[in-house]
Amino acid sequence: MAASAKRVEQLQRRVQELEEELARERGGGGQGQGQGQRARIEQMSPEVTDSNPYSRLMALKRMGIVKDYEKIRSFAVAVVGVGGVGSVTAEMLTRCGIGKLLLFDYDKVELANMNRLFFQPHQAGLSKVQAAEHTLRNINPDVQFEVHNYNITTVNNFQHFMDRISKGGLEEGKPVDLVLSCVDNFEARMAINTACNELGQIWMESGVSENAVSGHIQLVIPGESACFACAPPLVVAANIDEKTLKREGVCAASLPTTMGVVAGLLVQNVLKYLLNFGTVSFYLGYNAMQDFFPAMTMKPNPQCSDRNCRKQQEEFEKKEAANPKQEVFEQHEEIVHEDNDWGIELVSEISEEELKTASGPVPDLPEGITLAYTIPNKEESGVDGETVQESEESLEELMAKMKSI
Amino acid sequence: MAASAKRVEQLQRRVQELEEELARERGGGGQGQGQGQRARIEQMSPEVTDSNPYSRLMALKRMGIVKDYEKIRSFAVAVVGVGGVGSVTAEMLTRCGIGKLLLFDYDKVELANMNRLFFQPHQAGLSKVQAAEHTLRNINPDVQFEVHNYNITTVNNFQHFMDRISKGGLEEGKPVDLVLSCVDNFEARMAINTACNELGQIWMESGVSENAVSGHIQLVIPGESACFACAPPLVVAANIDEKTLKREGVCAASLPTTMGVVAGLLVQNVLKYLLNFGTVSFYLGYNAMQDFFPAMTMKPNPQCSDRNCRKQQEEFEKKEAANPKQEVFEQHEEIVHEDNDWGIELVSEISEEELKTASGPVPDLPEGITLAYTIPNKEESGVDGETVQESEESLEELMAKMKSI
Repeated sequence: MAASAKRVEQLQRRVQELEEELARERGGGGQGQGQGQRARIEQMSPEVTDSNPYSRLMALKRMGIVKDYEKIRSFAVAVVGVGGVGSVTAEMLTRCGIGKLLLFDYDKVELANMNRLFFQPHQAGLSKVQAAEHTLRNINPDVQFEVHNYNITTVNNFQHFMDRISKGGLEEGKPVDLVLSCVDNFEARMAINTACNELGQIWMESGVSENAVSGHIQLVIPGESACFACAPPLVVAANIDEKTLKREGVCAASLPTTMGVVAGLLVQNVLKYLLNFGTVSFYLGYNAMQDFFPAMTMKPNPQCSDRNCRKQQEEFEKKEAANPKQEVFEQHEEIVHEDNDWGIELVSEISEEELKTASGPVPDLPEGITLAYTIPNKEESGVDGETVQESEESLEELMAKMKSI
Repeated sequence: MAASAKRVEQLQRRVQELEEELARERGGGGQGQGQGQRARIEQMSPEVTDSNPYSRLMALKRMGIVKDYEKIRSFAVAVVGVGGVGSVTAEMLTRCGIGKLLLFDYDKVELANMNRLFFQPHQAGLSKVQAAEHTLRNINPDVQFEVHNYNITTVNNFQHFMDRISKGGLEEGKPVDLVLSCVDNFEARMAINTACNELGQIWMESGVSENAVSGHIQLVIPGESACFACAPPLVVAANIDEKTLKREGVCAASLPTTMGVVAGLLVQNVLKYLLNFGTVSFYLGYNAMQDFFPAMTMKPNPQCSDRNCRKQQEEFEKKEAANPKQEVFEQHEEIVHEDNDWGIELVSEISEEELKTASGPVPDLPEGITLAYTIPNKEESGVDGETVQESEESLEELMAKMKSI
């Protein structure tokens, strides 16, 4: 009996030990649901101590870079696409102490994603937004998270997405401050563009090429700068073989370096925009092969196929006329190409066969930037549905044809 | 008795349950010592499946970017400094499947580091190399790790550091393929420089400014490009107030964005160098305020204060004379300033008082790049010890003086 009692006692001790160990493990960033080891911080402090996670950020004030760093807590940012660029983007914003993050994705974590930063092998099988929320909450419990595990391009989800970016701000009912597109396909980008044009929502787009060696970021202010439907999306020319272009069914290459750089440039632009320092870039490209970084600004297209874009342009013009000095980025130096170079047709460059799918306007581009593809001109092609579907497949063909001319 | 036996059985079951749970937790990337959930992979495969962590990297071959991606496994890289830049650098190389990583740092993880990527709050208090090794091994068990928790600048550690970079390659006894400097102070950079000049070891340097809004990477090929003692280290001018420059005892600012971009550019340069694609950059700056990326190349200084640098220069010249076409980077386009612009004295720019500490040669710099500080000219200043100590404190003073002229 005494032996049995002792055995019970031993086992009880072991259970307690294991329970404590498990709690430590889970509290410390494992797979569990713990809140992380650090307590919430009510107010950002500039105090220089090892235990202050905000000391190096608040130092931006002392260094004369940012006037009011604490303001970061008043902003809500939506990140659409939590892959190679989006996950790092969300982590950077979380570590910077953003007020609220809304994450949208419908993918699952796979081992095939392990060549990019952020996700870890033990998260394989989890939804990306769920895995990201867990890791990010652990890193910074001061940030509010709202995650949506769905594809924004389906009709119902699109409505819900519109609803959340227009009402899911830091204060419920107010819009978010910025939408970041970190998606990897045309359809999703066009959905974000459509939503932001309708809502007058400022957003930034990002992208990485299929060969993993170039990328870009772009700021879209509806009515003020070119939207995604105003002009074909731009890519940084990488001087590589035609065979490296996207092909249906071929696995795209990706690198943690290129995606990390693009996420870094994107979030830097976000910080400059939200906290009002430095020069916010309208378009910044990254060509990894030559370490070349083309920059430019594009005005919106008065003939844009998106009527909400045209409406935003009218409103912007009215506002400009009423208060000509009021500009969103006073510190911005416009390096614009000729103002009304829109409406150039591809007639002389593309065969008649493609004219139907590729007759949209083409901007005059600086060296090193080329068009990813063109956007169908509805009037000429006689299509009056959404632009999303029709142009999606033209990339490869058009690029090949344009190259061969 | 029966009750007691039942209780023992219950407890045993609970212990087993908890042990299994704990194992799952640890295996899944918690704080424990588990090897992670994925098994080692003997050979990199290009197979496009969700479970292949190398599919997106091997796709670089199909895309025509890299000829032989698998070669990445044959390289050993030493990362000195596992902070904001070094930790992300190590993670990127780990995810790319580098053969071996050697990590050097003597710091502990603190909550004050949480504004940069990589470390998590539950790791506070652990040594940076230990915490990094655990996380990285979990991410990619195919990589070999060797970590050293010490300061490389002390005499004994410096000897050991020299020993490990000259013998700690993938095959023990062979040198590493590349040393990456991700440290945050002059002394450690100079120690790396001294070691690499003596060993003829190619290395890359990286740095981020104290105000967090600029950074750079630099490739040093002993004898072929300027070493750290040949010319004062360069910084990207950020057009900011004098008060933002480094001051003794003042907490430096840092941002996950700038550090992420610098780490990304650094590892991209490493991949281009090791896997032989694109153009390897000798110097690439990043000015976050203006999104400006100055590039340049610098020849070594024939009067360099480091005698091993001068020796390497002689050897390089001999090699060049014997085989004039043999260059390390055949694809590299030299954008060099006038060839022998060295030896310019700062006489007209700096007061007589500073001449003693700041009379080293100054290169002709492209727009946007300025000197961080100057290196003492031993002959003139009459000092014949190591250069490290003497020049360390001149940064702030010189910058201030140079600005005020």
